[in-house]
Amino acid sequence: MRTALLQSSGRPGSVAENLKVLDDAAGRAAAAGAGLLVTAEMFLTGYAIGDDIGRLAEPADGDSADAVAEIAGRHGVAVAYGYPERGHGEGSPADGGTAHVYNSVQLISADGTRLANYRKTHLFGCFERDHFTPGDRPVVQAELNGLRVGLMICYDVEFPENVRAHALAGTDLLLVPTAQMHPFQFVAESVVPVRAFENQMYVAYVNRTGPEGEFEFVGLSTLAGPDGVARARAGRGEELVLADADPVLLAASRETNPYLQDRRPGLYGSLV
Amino acid sequence: MRTALLQSSGRPGSVAENLKVLDDAAGRAAAAGAGLLVTAEMFLTGYAIGDDIGRLAEPADGDSADAVAEIAGRHGVAVAYGYPERGHGEGSPADGGTAHVYNSVQLISADGTRLANYRKTHLFGCFERDHFTPGDRPVVQAELNGLRVGLMICYDVEFPENVRAHALAGTDLLLVPTAQMHPFQFVAESVVPVRAFENQMYVAYVNRTGPEGEFEFVGLSTLAGPDGVARARAGRGEELVLADADPVLLAASRETNPYLQDRRPGLYGSLV
Repeated sequence: MRTALLQSSGRPGSVAENLKVLDDAAGRAAAAGAGLLVTAEMFLTGYAIGDDIGRLAEPADGDSADAVAEIAGRHGVAVAYGYPERGHGEGSPADGGTAHVYNSVQLISADGTRLANYRKTHLFGCFERDHFTPGDRPVVQAELNGLRVGLMICYDVEFPENVRAHALAGTDLLLVPTAQMHPFQFVAESVVPVRAFENQMYVAYVNRTGPEGEFEFVGLSTLAGPDGVARARAGRGEELVLADADPVLLAASRETNPYLQDRRPGLYGSLV
Repeated sequence: MRTALLQSSGRPGSVAENLKVLDDAAGRAAAAGAGLLVTAEMFLTGYAIGDDIGRLAEPADGDSADAVAEIAGRHGVAVAYGYPERGHGEGSPADGGTAHVYNSVQLISADGTRLANYRKTHLFGCFERDHFTPGDRPVVQAELNGLRVGLMICYDVEFPENVRAHALAGTDLLLVPTAQMHPFQFVAESVVPVRAFENQMYVAYVNRTGPEGEFEFVGLSTLAGPDGVARARAGRGEELVLADADPVLLAASRETNPYLQDRRPGLYGSLV
């Protein structure tokens, strides 16, 4: 499945402008034969927008989800986009009525169906802990064009445990909207390809660009294959890059690299 | 602690010749100020030596251990070396009397004391499964010159779970004798630096070189730091490379990268 990575910060603070950027990118992605378009973390609203995060947060089935579904349907391309979600806790019944804001990514199919919604489980730093509640479901997946697609956000992918859980659950293509900032380029350049290799999957890591508030985002979005090779790699600026997630190559690579079969779960007790 | 990586295949099949190579390297390492010398996997005997593995296997306190202790003591440098170990199972009492051959690494101090012995837990491919019994202790450590040193072998390091278990047990410097073969250079080049970064430790990965039996070893030994940067990197041939494992840099890096504190073990249940 051809996958398009929209490396763009859009216009932080303006949902309407960002939907226009998404619409334009979806058109270009579809014209290039892509079946899926992936945005950066918090693309819908911007990332470093302070308390506007709470003001602009929407339910997973809110107005912006409808707008994204319309864009996906009109261009015939699935869309995974990052946004602040206003939602209810999944934990104890006592928490069931409390509204929270989550750092989420939602996958909407090419026919406009909401397929999956993931809430970031590993929040990064004080800024995120001040503005978001962490999610509690580590693995969220959906079937798309014959691939099992998984969802994750930014800091989540730096923990090998998270990506391993996806591998064990059969994820073929892991989508990772991110807001990766200086000086952590090593994550984009090295950690992401290693995650793809050690778990025998594709990983699409899609970043923001340039300065925003106190942060400097570094771009370098990539689609890494199960051989650890970056099939697509963006530079530092706004860019739409495309590459294929190939189920045939994936199956052959898994034959050669039987990491999941050679694991010894009985020795990993200290991790949990 | 300055650490010397002996990238050499020695002379496969000849323990006496390999002890001479080790003696020479220990002298050069000590002269360069190293406190520790690390060899490749199965350095004592050679790797692709077929059934000679069983013939040359020795107990952890056997004659060759005494010879290595003498070399370490004479040069005043600790030595970690790979060898085939003849030993008894650690499992059930019923297995206590059965002799096995393990793929092991032993750490001997600069005063000739045997500090720690590790048996490879994750065997690679048919060759190893035909010749070795896997060990069952995932984390083996010793204190050396103010650092907590951990032991692991080759394929073990490709499983993120194994290195994470060391990080959780406080390993500062992980020693990984290896027999890394073509076409898996990606492990030396990328996986090892990522392991050091994601676990905030030093990793010394020491390989064999050149053709041996059906294998072609790729060298590229490295000492990777907690920032993911290779402090030392060998080429493809026989070489002794040195670099420092610096506890001050390590402590500062751990402050900046709080992966261990930010883990959510409650979400990792599927891994065990």
